[in-house]
Amino acid sequence: MKKIINDPNMIIKEMLNGLYKANQDKVKLNEDLKIIYRKDLPIKGKVGLISGGGSGHEPAHAGYVGDGMLDCAICGEIFTSPTPDQVLEAIKLADSGQGVFMVIKNYTGDVMNFDMAKDMAEMDGIKVDYIIVNDDVAVEDSTYTSGRRGIAGTIFVHKVLGAMARDGKSLQEIKAMAEKIVKNIKSMGMATKACINPISGKESFDLSERDMEIGVGIHGEPGVKQEKIKSANEISKELVDHILEDFDNLDGDFVLMVNGMGQTTEMELFVVNNYVNDYLKEKI
Amino acid sequence: MKKIINDPNMIIKEMLNGLYKANQDKVKLNEDLKIIYRKDLPIKGKVGLISGGGSGHEPAHAGYVGDGMLDCAICGEIFTSPTPDQVLEAIKLADSGQGVFMVIKNYTGDVMNFDMAKDMAEMDGIKVDYIIVNDDVAVEDSTYTSGRRGIAGTIFVHKVLGAMARDGKSLQEIKAMAEKIVKNIKSMGMATKACINPISGKESFDLSERDMEIGVGIHGEPGVKQEKIKSANEISKELVDHILEDFDNLDGDFVLMVNGMGQTTEMELFVVNNYVNDYLKEKI
Repeated sequence: MKKIINDPNMIIKEMLNGLYKANQDKVKLNEDLKIIYRKDLPIKGKVGLISGGGSGHEPAHAGYVGDGMLDCAICGEIFTSPTPDQVLEAIKLADSGQGVFMVIKNYTGDVMNFDMAKDMAEMDGIKVDYIIVNDDVAVEDSTYTSGRRGIAGTIFVHKVLGAMARDGKSLQEIKAMAEKIVKNIKSMGMATKACINPISGKESFDLSERDMEIGVGIHGEPGVKQEKIKSANEISKELVDHILEDFDNLDGDFVLMVNGMGQTTEMELFVVNNYVNDYLKEKI
Repeated sequence: MKKIINDPNMIIKEMLNGLYKANQDKVKLNEDLKIIYRKDLPIKGKVGLISGGGSGHEPAHAGYVGDGMLDCAICGEIFTSPTPDQVLEAIKLADSGQGVFMVIKNYTGDVMNFDMAKDMAEMDGIKVDYIIVNDDVAVEDSTYTSGRRGIAGTIFVHKVLGAMARDGKSLQEIKAMAEKIVKNIKSMGMATKACINPISGKESFDLSERDMEIGVGIHGEPGVKQEKIKSANEISKELVDHILEDFDNLDGDFVLMVNGMGQTTEMELFVVNNYVNDYLKEKI
């Protein structure tokens, strides 16, 4: 394993401090509870919006803290859900009396711990509601999750709900919109190599030198299949076809996001974007 | 080589179209001459600001086209300078009668071809001036360059001169500022692995599984040394010490940029940023 790190057990602490030092004009850091939060909290009259999850998926989640997006991001250990205590503290930080809305990616540990924090906050008199994002159309149920996994499409939830919260919408209005948009956010991934967890030093799954994994999860969970790598256009078509088949209908406007998982070059992402733009125009 | 591409000979065309399709609200593409340019050109009363170079360094250069930064980016083949004809067309696109300023990273092919385009444009009556950015303190002279190489610090040149051009400063004022800031921009890189050029399919240099290359160039040119990989803090200290030693004095304010070359995770970059912020506070 060749990574630019120090003691693997210090990565999260050092990473969060590094992120904080790069954005001190906008955010603060609770180092003990690993929460990155807007420095102007609580914001009077605004519903709090929080999210979080395991670390190792940067810029998720702390990269989306700021005006018009998240108020707090709660950061777990690498590929590990944050604890209820961490989430509870974020709820308290974000609450200005209007309640707090939690964006939870579907991952069994996250759902359980955010839900437990909700119960604890409600005992303290804070209104809390949430949405579970399950945009990954690749597989039903997987190694760490019942149902579909929550992945990169979550960014759209942060963006839309963040704008609503900034505009003074209520917890009920935000919840209603969350339910509506989550039904219409669909994603699918693939990988040409496994990631190496810096704690274990090991690859997260086995993949031969000539193969790719279609439908891979963001922690290296198995996808749909492993097969010989194809052209960018063939891969893109397969993923987009899966996604489109999952919609009841293709009326209305679409927003497209093409993203990598941290080590994909912009060159490759733009090659994919080139094809997918044209293919979507053909299909919808 | 596992890359998400189609025919390697089509990468540049497809990548530029993908970039264009993602940013159609802001830019246009001259596909034949591989120029990404602001869609509102020429801008009356404004000095044109252009840059460019080989592809394979994204987001350089086309990622910096926009309001307050570049008017045009000229994209060569992978790791290959754009031709004088390409640069000449960008000069013509950017000129509104106030002249055009070229930001050239020191790389022998770039310097030669941009300079030739300048001569051709001047024959057409367009005022052209330029700066050569040579921020890489790692080595004097290298495989493709006489003197120091121009690397990531070039972004600060785009940013400062872009703001001046937007504010209506003259070609002479921009040139004077360019000379001043380039003396004060210093960078140094390292690599834990070689990049694979998609055309050749080969690694750009040899590096053993346990080693890193200190002072590597952005095309895989040799740096200062190869040695066993160290901790993030040790690597960071070594690079920063090299950079600081190169300044005549450390008075005044500094701006820090920590960046990767396309495949470094945000986690690692923030670990480095954490250390370097503290170390700089100690040193300056």
